[in-house]
Amino acid sequence: MNTTLLTVADIRHVIAEVGLDTLMRQMIDGLEVAFREYTPETFVIPTRAGFHYEQPYPGLLEWMPSLRSGEAATIKVVGYHPHNPTHHEIPTILSSIGVYDTRTGLLAGLLDGTFLTALRTGAASAVASRYLGSSDSRTMGLIGLGAQAVTQLHALATVFSFDRVLAFDIDADASRSFAHRTAFLGLPVEIVPREQVVAEADILCTSTSVPVGCGPVFNDVETKPWLHINAVGSDFPGKTELPYALLRRAYVCPDFPEQAQTEGESQQLPPDQIGAALYDIVQNPGPYAQYQQSLTVFDSTGWALEDAVAAKLMLDHAQRLGVGSVIGLQHVPTDPLNPYDF
Amino acid sequence: MNTTLLTVADIRHVIAEVGLDTLMRQMIDGLEVAFREYTPETFVIPTRAGFHYEQPYPGLLEWMPSLRSGEAATIKVVGYHPHNPTHHEIPTILSSIGVYDTRTGLLAGLLDGTFLTALRTGAASAVASRYLGSSDSRTMGLIGLGAQAVTQLHALATVFSFDRVLAFDIDADASRSFAHRTAFLGLPVEIVPREQVVAEADILCTSTSVPVGCGPVFNDVETKPWLHINAVGSDFPGKTELPYALLRRAYVCPDFPEQAQTEGESQQLPPDQIGAALYDIVQNPGPYAQYQQSLTVFDSTGWALEDAVAAKLMLDHAQRLGVGSVIGLQHVPTDPLNPYDF
Repeated sequence: MNTTLLTVADIRHVIAEVGLDTLMRQMIDGLEVAFREYTPETFVIPTRAGFHYEQPYPGLLEWMPSLRSGEAATIKVVGYHPHNPTHHEIPTILSSIGVYDTRTGLLAGLLDGTFLTALRTGAASAVASRYLGSSDSRTMGLIGLGAQAVTQLHALATVFSFDRVLAFDIDADASRSFAHRTAFLGLPVEIVPREQVVAEADILCTSTSVPVGCGPVFNDVETKPWLHINAVGSDFPGKTELPYALLRRAYVCPDFPEQAQTEGESQQLPPDQIGAALYDIVQNPGPYAQYQQSLTVFDSTGWALEDAVAAKLMLDHAQRLGVGSVIGLQHVPTDPLNPYDF
Repeated sequence: MNTTLLTVADIRHVIAEVGLDTLMRQMIDGLEVAFREYTPETFVIPTRAGFHYEQPYPGLLEWMPSLRSGEAATIKVVGYHPHNPTHHEIPTILSSIGVYDTRTGLLAGLLDGTFLTALRTGAASAVASRYLGSSDSRTMGLIGLGAQAVTQLHALATVFSFDRVLAFDIDADASRSFAHRTAFLGLPVEIVPREQVVAEADILCTSTSVPVGCGPVFNDVETKPWLHINAVGSDFPGKTELPYALLRRAYVCPDFPEQAQTEGESQQLPPDQIGAALYDIVQNPGPYAQYQQSLTVFDSTGWALEDAVAAKLMLDHAQRLGVGSVIGLQHVPTDPLNPYDF
């Protein structure tokens, strides 16, 4: 039986054919559709689990399964190793995504998940900002200018028309290179102190590698009344990015409430202070439209549903374009009752 | 960054070079070493979790992660779809195994796990039977003659010198073909009623696809006093193979106690009736030698540690033989801070 494999080169090929902007737009739209269709019956999504270790370097390896009932299961395995860029010159977040045919259990597809993780995390922030941000947002703020910041800005610029981008990172190299890395967007990037980013932004994305217990990544300052924050970095017990006082004043929308309460900004909140999940708001936006003019936070821990949508988008493009290789990974003997029948 | 891929063809190549008997012997020995070295600090092994569904066919897709501290993490994804042989002419149990470098989170290896699952499940029964079976066992019994029965008999015949093999399956085709499928062992296979299998065996393996709630797969009859049973089939809540009365008379040794209590024969027992784990007995055999002359059960649900050992064995052989392909599966941009840097 055969498995479709999409390597880095294949994904590069798809991107070259489809275009990054189109891909991002399709990812945002696909995610919005999936959020609208989500029910606990159509999708089964357990909270992720993983291994956390300190040796040889601090790291986290997590598996994020999701099941689209009657169709396919998707399991992303994602590594979070903050020393990767400095020690190995590779990204902090690396992943691969397996898609399984639930009729037989066969691994139908396997693809790089690193690019797709960045893409879907950006897209999720775009969907959240579309529902909770002010529609005439002009100033985008970013705290933490690593790999995720690139797709955050790309995704948000797909949905909003920015004329200012205010950015901050504690790392001078990341700050210096950010304008270059996002030059394809044609937006003016200003590196400014973090308080200025927070005070002047209409929409803010935090995507830092702040260590456990070392948040928040900025002090509570006065913000625009309609500020919408996409808090992307917190994804581990004890790791949070936002000041508690700000969080208490905000309407907080988690991507996946069960997970956000143990890994997200929502860790800081009592359960009755946590708002509706993003899929809830997408399914029933009316009562939440009022929050577009007040302080809101999208508590984005990363939801396995997003990975399933991203994997399907990429595999569908690859199939249409004839990209990827088909390999006989799994052993299917001529006689199913004989494991030695090669 | 690169991932070593072992497809069906690669694994066939390794088997042709190494030989099935050598591979089975190395698997049994490797497993015994791993059981001896196991501590909850050296290996972190969560109980497996999975998706269970009834549509379009009844099926189970599980992920089985294990971490060898400071070295590697292994995640097997295994499907159990009992209609596969009849509906799709493919095995009930299909799987793939990913090996992750815990320094970086990269997927270092991916290989077919279907053959290896059968191999390691057989090998685990051989280790258990070596410690709990009677050393002069001559009659092997098998109930359930599917794919797992082939490797059960192969593994047991590696450790014991049988002169009789008594076998039973409710499926006439499986019964008819079993002698042919195990002809490479040169043992005389007799298809006999299940009661005779149980009554006359020195060592018995049950490896059936009995549905949930439909066990036991044989009635409680008088057995040889030293009978050792490897109960391999029970791997799901509610699925058990052995009669309760027999289980109560036996010394029951689970592979992985936490898992066996929810998925194995141990489901039927109060916790104080469950004996030591197999790794405990391997680490400290003295007090358990007495059980070799009494009724014992190895409650084998399948332990992720076994998959890690099997994957390493196969990857080591492949590397030594220059077998397998190396692919650039995961996206590693030149600039780790730029996900769009292709």
